[in-house]
Amino acid sequence: MRVDGRESKQLRPVHIEPHFMKHAEGSVLITVGDTKVICTASIDDKVPPFMRGGGKGWITAEYSMLPRATEQRNVRESSKGKLSGRTMEIQRLIGRALRSVVDLEKLGEKTIWIDCDVIQADGGTRTASITGAFVAMVLAFAKLMADNKLSELPVTDFLAATSVGVDEEHGVILDLNYVEDSKAKVDMNVVMTGAGRFVEIQGTGEEATFSREELQKLLDTAELGIRQLIGIQKEVLGPLAEAIQNRGERVNE
Amino acid sequence: MRVDGRESKQLRPVHIEPHFMKHAEGSVLITVGDTKVICTASIDDKVPPFMRGGGKGWITAEYSMLPRATEQRNVRESSKGKLSGRTMEIQRLIGRALRSVVDLEKLGEKTIWIDCDVIQADGGTRTASITGAFVAMVLAFAKLMADNKLSELPVTDFLAATSVGVDEEHGVILDLNYVEDSKAKVDMNVVMTGAGRFVEIQGTGEEATFSREELQKLLDTAELGIRQLIGIQKEVLGPLAEAIQNRGERVNE
Amino acid sequence: MRVDGRESKQLRPVHIEPHFMKHAEGSVLITVGDTKVICTASIDDKVPPFMRGGGKGWITAEYSMLPRATEQRNVRESSKGKLSGRTMEIQRLIGRALRSVVDLEKLGEKTIWIDCDVIQADGGTRTASITGAFVAMVLAFAKLMADNKLSELPVTDFLAATSVGVDEEHGVILDLNYVEDSKAKVDMNVVMTGAGRFVEIQGTGEEATFSREELQKLLDTAELGIRQLIGIQKEVLGPLAEAIQNRGERVNE
Amino acid sequence: MRVDGRESKQLRPVHIEPHFMKHAEGSVLITVGDTKVICTASIDDKVPPFMRGGGKGWITAEYSMLPRATEQRNVRESSKGKLSGRTMEIQRLIGRALRSVVDLEKLGEKTIWIDCDVIQADGGTRTASITGAFVAMVLAFAKLMADNKLSELPVTDFLAATSVGVDEEHGVILDLNYVEDSKAKVDMNVVMTGAGRFVEIQGTGEEATFSREELQKLLDTAELGIRQLIGIQKEVLGPLAEAIQNRGERVNE
Amino acid sequence: MRVDGRESKQLRPVHIEPHFMKHAEGSVLITVGDTKVICTASIDDKVPPFMRGGGKGWITAEYSMLPRATEQRNVRESSKGKLSGRTMEIQRLIGRALRSVVDLEKLGEKTIWIDCDVIQADGGTRTASITGAFVAMVLAFAKLMADNKLSELPVTDFLAATSVGVDEEHGVILDLNYVEDSKAKVDMNVVMTGAGRFVEIQGTGEEATFSREELQKLLDTAELGIRQLIGIQKEVLGPLAEAIQNRGERVNE
Amino acid sequence: MRVDGRESKQLRPVHIEPHFMKHAEGSVLITVGDTKVICTASIDDKVPPFMRGGGKGWITAEYSMLPRATEQRNVRESSKGKLSGRTMEIQRLIGRALRSVVDLEKLGEKTIWIDCDVIQADGGTRTASITGAFVAMVLAFAKLMADNKLSELPVTDFLAATSVGVDEEHGVILDLNYVEDSKAKVDMNVVMTGAGRFVEIQGTGEEATFSREELQKLLDTAELGIRQLIGIQKEVLGPLAEAIQNRGERVNE
Repeated sequence: MRVDGRESKQLRPVHIEPHFMKHAEGSVLITVGDTKVICTASIDDKVPPFMRGGGKGWITAEYSMLPRATEQRNVRESSKGKLSGRTMEIQRLIGRALRSVVDLEKLGEKTIWIDCDVIQADGGTRTASITGAFVAMVLAFAKLMADNKLSELPVTDFLAATSVGVDEEHGVILDLNYVEDSKAKVDMNVVMTGAGRFVEIQGTGEEATFSREELQKLLDTAELGIRQLIGIQKEVLGPLAEAIQNRGERVNE
Repeated sequence: MRVDGRESKQLRPVHIEPHFMKHAEGSVLITVGDTKVICTASIDDKVPPFMRGGGKGWITAEYSMLPRATEQRNVRESSKGKLSGRTMEIQRLIGRALRSVVDLEKLGEKTIWIDCDVIQADGGTRTASITGAFVAMVLAFAKLMADNKLSELPVTDFLAATSVGVDEEHGVILDLNYVEDSKAKVDMNVVMTGAGRFVEIQGTGEEATFSREELQKLLDTAELGIRQLIGIQKEVLGPLAEAIQNRGERVNE
Repeated sequence: MRVDGRESKQLRPVHIEPHFMKHAEGSVLITVGDTKVICTASIDDKVPPFMRGGGKGWITAEYSMLPRATEQRNVRESSKGKLSGRTMEIQRLIGRALRSVVDLEKLGEKTIWIDCDVIQADGGTRTASITGAFVAMVLAFAKLMADNKLSELPVTDFLAATSVGVDEEHGVILDLNYVEDSKAKVDMNVVMTGAGRFVEIQGTGEEATFSREELQKLLDTAELGIRQLIGIQKEVLGPLAEAIQNRGERVNE
Repeated sequence: MRVDGRESKQLRPVHIEPHFMKHAEGSVLITVGDTKVICTASIDDKVPPFMRGGGKGWITAEYSMLPRATEQRNVRESSKGKLSGRTMEIQRLIGRALRSVVDLEKLGEKTIWIDCDVIQADGGTRTASITGAFVAMVLAFAKLMADNKLSELPVTDFLAATSVGVDEEHGVILDLNYVEDSKAKVDMNVVMTGAGRFVEIQGTGEEATFSREELQKLLDTAELGIRQLIGIQKEVLGPLAEAIQNRGERVNE
Repeated sequence: MRVDGRESKQLRPVHIEPHFMKHAEGSVLITVGDTKVICTASIDDKVPPFMRGGGKGWITAEYSMLPRATEQRNVRESSKGKLSGRTMEIQRLIGRALRSVVDLEKLGEKTIWIDCDVIQADGGTRTASITGAFVAMVLAFAKLMADNKLSELPVTDFLAATSVGVDEEHGVILDLNYVEDSKAKVDMNVVMTGAGRFVEIQGTGEEATFSREELQKLLDTAELGIRQLIGIQKEVLGPLAEAIQNRGERVNE
Repeated sequence: MRVDGRESKQLRPVHIEPHFMKHAEGSVLITVGDTKVICTASIDDKVPPFMRGGGKGWITAEYSMLPRATEQRNVRESSKGKLSGRTMEIQRLIGRALRSVVDLEKLGEKTIWIDCDVIQADGGTRTASITGAFVAMVLAFAKLMADNKLSELPVTDFLAATSVGVDEEHGVILDLNYVEDSKAKVDMNVVMTGAGRFVEIQGTGEEATFSREELQKLLDTAELGIRQLIGIQKEVLGPLAEAIQNRGERVNE
């Protein structure tokens, strides 16, 4: 049994609370064990200059942690005056992942700003951000439809993410918490669609390497977790989930 | 009756949830109407270079808003690479206010980092930050005492803050929400101790002025609100409140 | 008697030299004891983007100190690459104060840039800046009128500022110099109009508090000083002062 | 046939010129088709503060492009005053990859600074940087050994990287040039050791997704390319390659 | 004989390789002893805002060094987030020098971006940059003419630069390498045209001074070197050199 | 006659007011026509890290302009968050020039901070800064001697600077004001010692060139002006000037 009593292929308890914020067009609080992230989706009626006139929309993401989300207080990036490489990497990943399941031409010339603010961190903040941000984004699209600013959900499939890793003691494990993440030889983040297709795989051996066989087990385990996460997204989204599913099936036929 | 149905001298519903964060030495979530602020107090076992060897402690504060705490999304200060004047002003105010009720020599060479992160904003974020941060700080001191790193609460009195203003329609009003704040001719923030002494008065007429008589009414109204806020702090702090009260009385005799 | 031989309610010698700078539309050198500030008012024929088309003008201020204005040399903010919180706070205060006595609609879509550069500092630089900047601004308006770019002085009243404080030895004192400011328990800056109305009150007890009674004495003392400062402004402005007075009286009736 | 006449699984011509720079402890110019990167390894006799006293070494990397390495001139990051997210991501990847094949304890408290400066860019600059930087690093270690500052090569295996992708027309292709990279549906960078173990896999579908089967083909193709790249590294390194091979075999037994 | 075996008035071996870069409109690699600089000229079809509509072109330059161009590794200016004073001074010098031999009205509303990237440094990088950038710029103009975007070479004369200095041992010396530059009492950079006219003289005695007589010898020696450098430029430019010469003569008549 | 009625080789009226600032160890206000610069010299009892333990002192300079020193208001470099290339160039020039006439070993491990703040600008601000800063520095040394922190004036000679230029109408002219500077074909700044030796020559033809003959006339004219400026410095320095002269003569024998 793992440090927190889980089986090797068991997710932590996951909860997604929709409409968490008063002002945002779409928002959730996603809780994965002790990791808590507020995800909001804001709609801007224009696109960045390099895209103007092309008729397509854009999705971009920002990520931040409260200074005391972690065991030790972190210096704010606003005080340091610049973003760390880690923050930039995560922001780029979140935006890229969401864009892979959105029909940007259907969206039209709008920008969706995704904000993922980590209130409390215990490992897996970037994958929780993606899983939560997907729901926040769909809620924002629903609001656009309710306001008659969009005729159809421009979402081609579900999207969720989790981490997997290789641990000295337990082998391949799912959904690493902070302690496990610190000790893992191999750490992999997987972003996958409802149809089971990969959107992003980032596997890395910090001062270590991994074999083709380990990779297969890591991907199997990730898929197991992501299917459950998408199940939770469906419950939260209710009728909106059905709309995505219908459309997703058409697209994947 | 005001825009949200309140009387002119009525606070919005206030709730302080202690121990809101897993990692911080002290923390609260303070809710004042739709304004929500996470306040944490973190302990650092050293003081800034210019204070080393002096035997005194230090308290410093940082303040930030989530981008979508507000009606319109704000650009993150970490993305802009610098803090706004407004943020700096608020950070300085919070730190200064808390230092006024702490016996820094009793604290010894430690720094208390106060972080006030506005999750949702509807006016009065700086005063809610002070009221919440006071409780978070006392909880952090209690933790230091529980860990035998401090022999006595180094707090000389309670501390809370509210806003008052002059409104065209209702005259002097207490605890302005965002809409009221935008329209007020005069806006004043008052920070006060349990003994009813002023720590900070910042009254300002943006494109307006105010008379000595209006000032008196503003201060009377602020005092009324602050007494209630300190009552709520006392309930939350329980036995810790008594320890402060006893000490406070000695100091104010 | 105070450290420099003054009575507790006595201002330092004040001198305002108009037209101090060759290029600026309005300028003064204000001297308050050993504090010397060059204040200029520059006219820009446009307003910030967020105000365009509204028909109203804008007034904004910048404040800086020469590195060797003080006893110890300060690092330049241009070398550090950012403004301190103190500088931002003062800049915002000066701009806000001046806007309170200007009819921005009468001014029309122009921006007045106020620059306050402290040549030598001995306490009270922000209040001297306000007192001097008011005169510089009026001189700039006069130049606009002389150039037929403005038909009427858009100034509703006089405006001056001073500091008051509570001193261990002398109680409430007026117009603190640097040594007094460093030792004062309570420090308050007051900005007031010719009609005796408050524009800004910023009272703060650094590691101290103050009572309602002390506040009253502080305000009485500040008013005493400000009336004298406005007297000096009137002498310097001559016929322009009369134009303000006439207009001010109409407005305050 | 591909745009430049290659087969789908064919690398571009690769050349590694060792000792390209006069001053650096280790250096190469690596040419992969029209992509040219100068890689240097510089030795610093200390480690970052957070590692001091731990007895282990550190490897860190920086990456940059000349403004006119590309079709359109890029603004310098030194002129913009900050690094882009892309640059940070690449720098972190290069450092992490190299650390995975170095025995940092054998290296001792030294920092190896890797600089990868792209002189000309035609796709694959990050993977060329890794392949070239590995050689530059080994040359720097050899210099340390020649100077009697290191008793043994602290390298556990070879390391090289390439890109693979999925193209509408040609399916899975190896070593994408810029034009191919711009059009690919899926883009994957793979870093692998001489023993065929993965160090890093970064697969991403920009506005697209990929299946498990496609992933397998991508990895097979990447392995094919990396084996050839390691062959080229061995030729360049000569006797040093043998020393790595012997050691690598021991470690992987 | 000097440290590298040269006579006091002897240049180091100079080589200019034209068309060094694939993408730039004009480019060279200039080698002066162990100093190597890539110079590119890029064409932008607009001018800076302050020049728009004036019908004249603009030439601006940027300069940078690879971190390991030097004996000790330098921190990148992109990592520091700002340019050093030395870099800015050199950039301004290169741009100013090139503008002195270009007929900006003939060029029309275009900006020529000159990039000088020092690959390896052994003294004289700024003068090598000017000598190389002149050739890169002419090649870019030739490309504009070949593309029918320019009807005539807008160059009024040749332009090259070198350094001279006063050395304790050898007196006045030409083309200082790094070791000589570090020890020289007086250091002077001279930029001159094909007609032997000065464009820029920057002579400086770091902790030393120099007489009128020394100045004359320095200028004579610089002229000697620059005549040779222009000879090399002419060989590289071939028929383009003749076009300049014809035009230059007309202008200087 | 020139635009302000001067002869071609006539300086503008020059006045140096010593002890202009209350706090600085040495200070002057130098007035050259309408150009006014406050120069202060501040003493720091340590040297920069790279010089520690070497027994030598250091002199460094900072230069700035008030925003409204000029006809049009300039944006503050502190607001822009970085220094312009022009400012850096001037700062480096002033520091270098002063170091050439100071015996840094005699000074010992102290840093002299020179601050040149331009209050009003009408051309020639950098040369006025050097001429004024020299006097401020000598006054600071005198204070060090009076405080028994220095046994002897560590100054080897006088130092002053002026500008010369070539004007379409008047040929070579001395001490250019802003209007003349804007129109000059050639602009040269010359820094010279009391013994008539050059410290720095910076001649530049913006979009123009100059001949050897013009150079000779420029240098003759500059020398003429500098001799007068040194005469004024001697008057201001009185007995200190004699101390320099005696020492200067010994050194130049």
